Amino acid sequence: MLKYQQIATEIETYIEEHQLQQGDKLPVLETLMAQFEVSKSTITKSLELLEQKGAIFQVRGSGIFVRKHKRKGYISLLSNQGFKKDLEDFNVTSKVIELDVRKPTPEAAENLNIGMDEDIYYVKRVRYINGQTLCYEESYYTKSIVTYLNNEIVSHSIFHYIREGLGLKIGFSDLFLHVGQLNEEEAEYLGLEAGLPKLYIESIFHLTNGQPFDYSKISYNYEQSQFVVQANSFLL
Amino acid sequence: MLKYQQIATEIETYIEEHQLQQGDKLPVLETLMAQFEVSKSTITKSLELLEQKGAIFQVRGSGIFVRKHKRKGYISLLSNQGFKKDLEDFNVTSKVIELDVRKPTPEAAENLNIGMDEDIYYVKRVRYINGQTLCYEESYYTKSIVTYLNNEIVSHSIFHYIREGLGLKIGFSDLFLHVGQLNEEEAEYLGLEAGLPKLYIESIFHLTNGQPFDYSKISYNYEQSQFVVQANSFLL
Repeated sequence: MLKYQQIATEIETYIEEHQLQQGDKLPVLETLMAQFEVSKSTITKSLELLEQKGAIFQVRGSGIFVRKHKRKGYISLLSNQGFKKDLEDFNVTSKVIELDVRKPTPEAAENLNIGMDEDIYYVKRVRYINGQTLCYEESYYTKSIVTYLNNEIVSHSIFHYIREGLGLKIGFSDLFLHVGQLNEEEAEYLGLEAGLPKLYIESIFHLTNGQPFDYSKISYNYEQSQFVVQANSFLL
Repeated sequence: MLKYQQIATEIETYIEEHQLQQGDKLPVLETLMAQFEVSKSTITKSLELLEQKGAIFQVRGSGIFVRKHKRKGYISLLSNQGFKKDLEDFNVTSKVIELDVRKPTPEAAENLNIGMDEDIYYVKRVRYINGQTLCYEESYYTKSIVTYLNNEIVSHSIFHYIREGLGLKIGFSDLFLHVGQLNEEEAEYLGLEAGLPKLYIESIFHLTNGQPFDYSKISYNYEQSQFVVQANSFLL
C-alpha cells in the first residue's frame, strides 16, 4: 500500500472511530500535512482518493467534509472488493455447487476476450447472508490469469485469494444490471418461487493492465439484497 | 468549464470520432501536452477525470488506453446528468402528472435534511422511451434551493434547467437500489401488471457544497431499462 493510500485509510478510520456524520468538517490541509508529516501533494492524493470513494467532499474555499449516507446493510456497487466487506456485520457464507476447468461459452469468451479453445475455471455458487439465500452466481475465470482454484478457495473470498494468493492487481470493472423474473433453476437455488423478481448483474473484472479475467452472472434474492451507489460530480 | 475539463471533452470526442475500441492506445503524455499546449499538471488532471469517468485506463510504464464497454442502450448509474444523455439515440419524453409546492413527507424531509415546515416542489412524472413507459418518478426539490419550476421545465430535463437556468453546481449523489414488485398505482402508470418486477431507485442529489436538493423515488419498467456501472479500482 502506498503512503497516500495508507493515510486515506487512517483518515477513514478516524471518521469511523469518531462517528463523524455527513457534513462534519475535517481539519484543514495544513493541519493534515503536519499531522501525517507528509507533503501537500501526498495529502492531496489521499483526499482525492477519499473523494472518489465517496467518503468525503471538498468545497473550494470552505474545507473538507465527511460524506456518509445513513443507511446500513447496503451492498456497494462501486466496491471492487466483492461484497463481503460491505456486509461485515452480517454472516456471509458460500456453498459451492460446481467447480471445474472447461471451455468457455460463446458469451463468456466474448466478455473475457478469449478464444473458444482457451481454458476457464467455471464456478457455480450460492451465497447466504445470516442463513438466508443472498444470490446465485455463475463465474468464468480465464485460467491463464487465474491459474489455480480449489474448493476451499471458492468457498471463501475468491477476490481476496486473487489479490493476496496470486498477487494479481485488480483494476476496473463493468457491471450490467437488469431486473427480471427468476427461472426455475435460479428459484430453486434461492428457495423462492419462479417468476418472482430478481436483480441480475453481469460483471466483467479487469486487471490494472486492462485484461479481463472474471465474467460473472449473479441473480440476487430481491428480499435480501439492496445496493448503494455513491456517485461523484466527475462528469462533464 | 475549466481548461482540463475542456481537454478531457476533446479527448473523448477524439475517441468517439475515431471509433476507438477498448485497449486502443492513446498518444503518450508528452504528445498530448504538445498537442493541447498545456502543462503536465493540466493534462494529468484531464486524464484523471477521464479515468474516473471510465473512458480510459492508465497502465504505469505502458501508456494510456481507451476503456469502452460494448453494450448500447444502457443507462449509466454514475452519470449525474440524468439519463437523457445515455439514451441520446433514443427518444425520451416525459408526461407530468403532478407539479405543486407543498410540505415534505417525513421521508423526504429526512432525506433532504430539512424541516417539515419548509416548502418543496413535488413532481410526479412518467417517462417514456420510444413511446414505451420507461419509469414512474416522484421527486421532491427543496424550494429554497430550486426556487422555481413550471410545467414546461419539468416536461424536459430538470437537471439541465437547474444547472443552466438556475446556475447551481450539482455535486455528488447517493443512489439506493431495491428490486421489488409493482404496486397497483405504479403498474397502472407503467402499463404493466401489478406484481411484476421493478427496479426501484431512491436518489439524493447534493450541490457541490454538500446541500441535498433533490430526493427522488423512481420505479423502472424492467422490460425497458438496463443499467451500467463502470467502476474503478479506487478502493483500498
